[in-house]
Amino acid sequence: MHLLETKGQDYVQGFCIIKSLNVRTSANGSTYLDMVVGDAGGEVAAKLWSYDKTAHGEYQPGQIIKVRGTVSEWQGRDQLKITMIRLAAPGDDYDLMALVPCAPIDVEQTYADMHALVEKFENQDLKKLTLYFLDQNRAALLVHPGAFKLHHAMRGGLLYHTYTILRMAQAACQVYPQLNPELLYCGVILHDMAKLHELEADELGLCSGYTVAGNLLGHIAMGVAHIETAARELAIDPYIALMVEHMVLSHHGEPDTGSPVRPMFPEADALSELDMLDARMFIFSDHLRDISSGAFTDRIWALDNRKIFNHGLAPQGE
Amino acid sequence: MHLLETKGQDYVQGFCIIKSLNVRTSANGSTYLDMVVGDAGGEVAAKLWSYDKTAHGEYQPGQIIKVRGTVSEWQGRDQLKITMIRLAAPGDDYDLMALVPCAPIDVEQTYADMHALVEKFENQDLKKLTLYFLDQNRAALLVHPGAFKLHHAMRGGLLYHTYTILRMAQAACQVYPQLNPELLYCGVILHDMAKLHELEADELGLCSGYTVAGNLLGHIAMGVAHIETAARELAIDPYIALMVEHMVLSHHGEPDTGSPVRPMFPEADALSELDMLDARMFIFSDHLRDISSGAFTDRIWALDNRKIFNHGLAPQGE
Amino acid sequence: MHLLETKGQDYVQGFCIIKSLNVRTSANGSTYLDMVVGDAGGEVAAKLWSYDKTAHGEYQPGQIIKVRGTVSEWQGRDQLKITMIRLAAPGDDYDLMALVPCAPIDVEQTYADMHALVEKFENQDLKKLTLYFLDQNRAALLVHPGAFKLHHAMRGGLLYHTYTILRMAQAACQVYPQLNPELLYCGVILHDMAKLHELEADELGLCSGYTVAGNLLGHIAMGVAHIETAARELAIDPYIALMVEHMVLSHHGEPDTGSPVRPMFPEADALSELDMLDARMFIFSDHLRDISSGAFTDRIWALDNRKIFNHGLAPQGE
Amino acid sequence: MHLLETKGQDYVQGFCIIKSLNVRTSANGSTYLDMVVGDAGGEVAAKLWSYDKTAHGEYQPGQIIKVRGTVSEWQGRDQLKITMIRLAAPGDDYDLMALVPCAPIDVEQTYADMHALVEKFENQDLKKLTLYFLDQNRAALLVHPGAFKLHHAMRGGLLYHTYTILRMAQAACQVYPQLNPELLYCGVILHDMAKLHELEADELGLCSGYTVAGNLLGHIAMGVAHIETAARELAIDPYIALMVEHMVLSHHGEPDTGSPVRPMFPEADALSELDMLDARMFIFSDHLRDISSGAFTDRIWALDNRKIFNHGLAPQGE
Amino acid sequence: MHLLETKGQDYVQGFCIIKSLNVRTSANGSTYLDMVVGDAGGEVAAKLWSYDKTAHGEYQPGQIIKVRGTVSEWQGRDQLKITMIRLAAPGDDYDLMALVPCAPIDVEQTYADMHALVEKFENQDLKKLTLYFLDQNRAALLVHPGAFKLHHAMRGGLLYHTYTILRMAQAACQVYPQLNPELLYCGVILHDMAKLHELEADELGLCSGYTVAGNLLGHIAMGVAHIETAARELAIDPYIALMVEHMVLSHHGEPDTGSPVRPMFPEADALSELDMLDARMFIFSDHLRDISSGAFTDRIWALDNRKIFNHGLAPQGE
Amino acid sequence: MHLLETKGQDYVQGFCIIKSLNVRTSANGSTYLDMVVGDAGGEVAAKLWSYDKTAHGEYQPGQIIKVRGTVSEWQGRDQLKITMIRLAAPGDDYDLMALVPCAPIDVEQTYADMHALVEKFENQDLKKLTLYFLDQNRAALLVHPGAFKLHHAMRGGLLYHTYTILRMAQAACQVYPQLNPELLYCGVILHDMAKLHELEADELGLCSGYTVAGNLLGHIAMGVAHIETAARELAIDPYIALMVEHMVLSHHGEPDTGSPVRPMFPEADALSELDMLDARMFIFSDHLRDISSGAFTDRIWALDNRKIFNHGLAPQGE
Repeated sequence: MHLLETKGQDYVQGFCIIKSLNVRTSANGSTYLDMVVGDAGGEVAAKLWSYDKTAHGEYQPGQIIKVRGTVSEWQGRDQLKITMIRLAAPGDDYDLMALVPCAPIDVEQTYADMHALVEKFENQDLKKLTLYFLDQNRAALLVHPGAFKLHHAMRGGLLYHTYTILRMAQAACQVYPQLNPELLYCGVILHDMAKLHELEADELGLCSGYTVAGNLLGHIAMGVAHIETAARELAIDPYIALMVEHMVLSHHGEPDTGSPVRPMFPEADALSELDMLDARMFIFSDHLRDISSGAFTDRIWALDNRKIFNHGLAPQGE
Repeated sequence: MHLLETKGQDYVQGFCIIKSLNVRTSANGSTYLDMVVGDAGGEVAAKLWSYDKTAHGEYQPGQIIKVRGTVSEWQGRDQLKITMIRLAAPGDDYDLMALVPCAPIDVEQTYADMHALVEKFENQDLKKLTLYFLDQNRAALLVHPGAFKLHHAMRGGLLYHTYTILRMAQAACQVYPQLNPELLYCGVILHDMAKLHELEADELGLCSGYTVAGNLLGHIAMGVAHIETAARELAIDPYIALMVEHMVLSHHGEPDTGSPVRPMFPEADALSELDMLDARMFIFSDHLRDISSGAFTDRIWALDNRKIFNHGLAPQGE
Repeated sequence: MHLLETKGQDYVQGFCIIKSLNVRTSANGSTYLDMVVGDAGGEVAAKLWSYDKTAHGEYQPGQIIKVRGTVSEWQGRDQLKITMIRLAAPGDDYDLMALVPCAPIDVEQTYADMHALVEKFENQDLKKLTLYFLDQNRAALLVHPGAFKLHHAMRGGLLYHTYTILRMAQAACQVYPQLNPELLYCGVILHDMAKLHELEADELGLCSGYTVAGNLLGHIAMGVAHIETAARELAIDPYIALMVEHMVLSHHGEPDTGSPVRPMFPEADALSELDMLDARMFIFSDHLRDISSGAFTDRIWALDNRKIFNHGLAPQGE
Repeated sequence: MHLLETKGQDYVQGFCIIKSLNVRTSANGSTYLDMVVGDAGGEVAAKLWSYDKTAHGEYQPGQIIKVRGTVSEWQGRDQLKITMIRLAAPGDDYDLMALVPCAPIDVEQTYADMHALVEKFENQDLKKLTLYFLDQNRAALLVHPGAFKLHHAMRGGLLYHTYTILRMAQAACQVYPQLNPELLYCGVILHDMAKLHELEADELGLCSGYTVAGNLLGHIAMGVAHIETAARELAIDPYIALMVEHMVLSHHGEPDTGSPVRPMFPEADALSELDMLDARMFIFSDHLRDISSGAFTDRIWALDNRKIFNHGLAPQGE
Repeated sequence: MHLLETKGQDYVQGFCIIKSLNVRTSANGSTYLDMVVGDAGGEVAAKLWSYDKTAHGEYQPGQIIKVRGTVSEWQGRDQLKITMIRLAAPGDDYDLMALVPCAPIDVEQTYADMHALVEKFENQDLKKLTLYFLDQNRAALLVHPGAFKLHHAMRGGLLYHTYTILRMAQAACQVYPQLNPELLYCGVILHDMAKLHELEADELGLCSGYTVAGNLLGHIAMGVAHIETAARELAIDPYIALMVEHMVLSHHGEPDTGSPVRPMFPEADALSELDMLDARMFIFSDHLRDISSGAFTDRIWALDNRKIFNHGLAPQGE
Repeated sequence: MHLLETKGQDYVQGFCIIKSLNVRTSANGSTYLDMVVGDAGGEVAAKLWSYDKTAHGEYQPGQIIKVRGTVSEWQGRDQLKITMIRLAAPGDDYDLMALVPCAPIDVEQTYADMHALVEKFENQDLKKLTLYFLDQNRAALLVHPGAFKLHHAMRGGLLYHTYTILRMAQAACQVYPQLNPELLYCGVILHDMAKLHELEADELGLCSGYTVAGNLLGHIAMGVAHIETAARELAIDPYIALMVEHMVLSHHGEPDTGSPVRPMFPEADALSELDMLDARMFIFSDHLRDISSGAFTDRIWALDNRKIFNHGLAPQGE
């Protein structure tokens, strides 16, 4: 966590985000704030002892704050004892990139590239349908995370995930000429679009959980329903809409992972496989970053409980 | 099969439906019709030797025909050798009930009862939404089968299945007062409504297979999309629409049987269980009809490969 | 917990049950009682510091005690510091219903209704067999819980569970005339009867775990063996006994949930499905009570790890 | 098949058993018998053309007959055309061993050895219980097969299977001194005893299928119920009876293969594993007999669809 | 089948391959050849009636023959009645490509490209190891099929499969810079190399089944053992060899599909996913070729029993 | 734990092994050692407060130390407060058997017996191959544990496990004469030999985890590769080597437990079953030791989460 790196002689100081917050009473009867605060580099438990609402102000999760405090170790982990706290204010000089994990892409440019690719579609139905969703959701797409906790849980993560799959899809259309590129690209761009409605995210691109509809329906069924509604509104050829709906419905590959039907044509299957590959590549990198060469991670739930290995063999040329 | 019961001295005669039909060439080079014909009582293989398109006419599956012929046994099964054949014509005196398996209900009355029940709903959103689908699909509901091959594959089968679940749902609301009756009834009536678009059925109520959309999406995802579209058109409270969509999406109970989400509130769960119970009761009766008291059937795929038993203990009072 | 509601100016006081108890030594070498005490409304951790066997008396789990103490918060949870303690004594004025969770039925009346229903059976074998078990186990049935931890874990829970299934079974016999009512009712009443021998329960109807036989055989195999033994003793028609044994053996539906055979006739199948429905309806209500409208629970193990939702749509008329 | 080995100049002749039999009508209207006949060496399809009930007599499956006929090949398989047929009669000179597959043991001696072993038990409860079942079922044990179709489907197969497990159990008690020998031997001898009531077998030791109780309960649940009833009748210590019941109930190892509980003490576990080993050794030998060295069988359902291999490496010393 | 397209006025004539062959006896006692013959376009059943070994010659599966005959329909399928037959002889003018399904690549060039890529490796261990296997198996790689029946069962299929994965792997290294290209390429090239020893193939590249070692070990375990042996012989760094062995061992992704360990580093995972994608793309194309636009195939075992759909939307530009 | 049994008036004293060790900082800023120390009888948490590297020395896991300290209870468990500590030194008088759990066999004698058995093999290939591995690994075999945490995790455990299976295999060859003894014995001796390379063990026979190769390949694939390499080096008949490799590859029985192929001949199957039996017998005894007669353990992961029962019925004669 970047904040902790500012550790000086006596104290640390800087900006961070409140991840969770509880007001508690200690054994001796006084009130204190029990928080987890974090930035793009990690999290730390924090306590504000003898909390006084009037003096210290009131806070809630998701807010950016400025704190000063001292760090000690408790049960083998760092703990921050806060001595000063206030909300970030306009004019404060902090770097959003340092506070929130952000996708390593220029989101404006990526969105523009994707838009431009679709504008060149020859199939007018696919073009109209895809642009409709891109245009409607531009603002959200620039910040929305790709997941709650697993892969691409970062500001702009949904766009980043969509874009890397799109790049692989372009390669796949070269290697497998039986694929219809425009159908595949449309499927790639729309496959997770309903995550905008499945995941509760704030304007920082931080996800705080699932929406009610996200829990009761999930982004796959929602995606199909949204395409159906849009297709009727835009008077898209129902056959084309059906193909796209199938791609969205089947993109998790099999019932156990959320798709009631399996992919039934090559573009749907390629989408499903490239989606899986992209998620896996992200999760691997995300976990390998934390371990040294020659070491294994703990078991990773999102990878079927496998442990993964850092072999330390750098790509040539690096 | 009723037709075979007309076996007289020399021949049998009557009306039946063409279930399948192939024009073939025999070893000696002549052309013949290789058919399966059937009625509500069963099926039989039939041959029309020395088939002459001009003399005998042309035929296709699903047509009602009148035939005369002789029955012999071949490899342990009856076979019909057709001597005369023609299409059924207006004015012919046949009984549709004898030709097509029909649900044992008065479909007009059942539809009317269901409609009347919904008209009394206090919740206007649930009422508007349910009536919309009932009104839109009246004609189809009076004849549509409930499935291709498994349970309720009969004329009016979908309505019959829906109605018996509804009766059990009414009892459940007495026994379990925590259930919201109108929400449950709405879910029951709409849960399989998209089977109208999943199954290809003719005006006799005979199902010939799945539609393209039925294969690529299935009635569950289609049902959700249709409710979403209707709810927007009718300006239904989106929260109410969401509850109904969840009930439809979850009514097969678990991913392996087609529902990407499990039922998450009591009405959704009760719908799922009563749907299963109704399907099972139908399949049991359907198979037990064919075996004698004290005997077991073969393994039944639709019942997880179990064999079932006719215990022969009649309900008292019969 | 009701006891905590008595919180006065300085202390709380009232009756409760000892759920667990350990005598421990504190860091400073003194002895203390580390208990969990509870009533029908919940549980709380309790400490009796400087425990003196002679002065305070000796205690064990399951006893009803009267305590006085003060409540403080420790690690986010209430904790009771006991200052006075004694065993409940004859003449004490406490309400059993407030101490133990009880099924919301009049157990005497419910038992009598069930008995009366069976007395009217026309099939003498089913009547004799069912009455035998009802008569033999009357006292236990009035208090026994339905499970250790999952559904119906309350005083009278087994009878309550049996009775609500019986009500649904009566409705099912109206809707599905192919069912033999007396066979079904017999199966319903006997299906969990061996839980009396599977679960260790005290006279309060509280379950403390499984018996040795409950672990080594389970209530399903025990139930079959008990029916076999009773049927021979009562000279029941072995064929009738076999039908009932099959219903008991198959009532969990499939091998993975404890039934080595699947239900093979309609009454066995209906029993299995209505048993499941009743358990589910109980678990849903039990968990929904604790969350507010619009909220989800945590994942519930007994419902295949699904989270459930309180939609807040009250049944009309309430 | 031994019968076919008698092929002379013009015809074959000998004794065999009717495995299945149908009276059919041929294309030209005449009646014929369509049979499968067999002996310990195999089976062959057989036809008796122009069957005349009066002249030829009436027959049913399971009977021993004497036939004469000619053998030809039809669709790559032998077929027997019968010219003379009659029932075997007292005084006929045939060898039962050649007609029915028989376990390769002296059943009288094996039974006696097993009985003698039990007589030496020190634990009187285990001794009484085990001898009760051995004595009650002596006649049946000398001929009953071990299964319908899978392993040990031969005259005396149940005894043979029990006995080879017992020999391995004796070795296991040497290697694993933690095992209680008498408890283990009792479990071995009783584990499949209820197969006598699960499988319909004739006096030849040929099994024609499952009994009604075999289908509805299975030999495992029946075995437990029989031990419970016997234990009460014999006033066996209920704790000892419970141990034996658990061994029988758990001997298939896990729910998917028929045991609702897994083995919970070492003797139960050893029984389960040695039972599996014995079944496997039988199935392997049974299939390897039919293929040559260096060849694989087809996939074998009873061995989880594996193909097995004849490596042709004979044990040294043979 | 190309042969059948030569159907002239009276007969067809041409070259084909014997797929299977049996010498049989007909009902009237004469001997005939019962064959399946085929070429790259399909197969047909063929009979040579009144077969005379001296006059017609002797034949076995896998041979190329020249035949003349007439085609008729039997039970809805073509059947070839052979009138003349002889073995293909040197100088015969037939096109191998028309007889055997061949991978749609120039195998010599593809092999050369792959070799050239590896020659440029900077890591000497990976280079030595990969070239060793390429050089050792050059001749076999030019013809060996990729599978017995599933994907890439064609002459040169193994090389074709390897090469298309390699092209996708090159794209993946662009999109996912965390991948080590040389390690990934080495894994791609060696992952199925042991199929050369798992599948019995003739010099035409036709596979007739599995070798004994193929059945008893499979190409995955064999591949690991071959790399281990080669690495020791070539004095490869054991750590590098271990990485490659892991890639081969894990490339089927999970235990149920043949890999006892799951991929534990990114290159292993990417290999596994791209291998799956390539197999799927092949199977889809292979089956879609046979059905018309708007139609579904039957269920396909190799695709988890899904039916697949020909949507008929051609890639733009075609 | 033996050390704790030395509890005198004031303190305990003796030798033990450091199982884990962390240097921590307490709330008051001082440094302390947080350890778990153990011997063959168990483990205990231990603290060395005010740790001074210079005064107390430096330590690491696996070392044998001599300590003095006092024992108190903390949160229901013993805790050792260390007052004096030093490394064990040459000349110290401690009993290795008391410090490390050791297999209850004379390892030298057991190794010698096994060697002698193989020396008598008639099949020279099997003899050469088996002796090669025995001779190469003699030193390691005398101490290596059989597993990391599950069964036979003790000094000499691998040899002990191998030897008890071998004894059962000798019995099996008596009971099942179809088994080839030398092939089976070879498979038994080599089946887990690669555990020497899969598990990281020190010279005490204590296992600290898996090696990199153990994680990436596992002992089964490694075993096959080692046999392949040795067989080529020793010029063993490849067919014989293939049989042994198959036995090693298949000895876990099925894909889900680590064997990509199932056992395909009787010796492979018997090995797999006897291996399972031996592991189970060990785990049962290991857990039953800790509970009293009539009690159940907690659920045991290594036994499919079953609880096991101590029935308390001692083998006769004890």
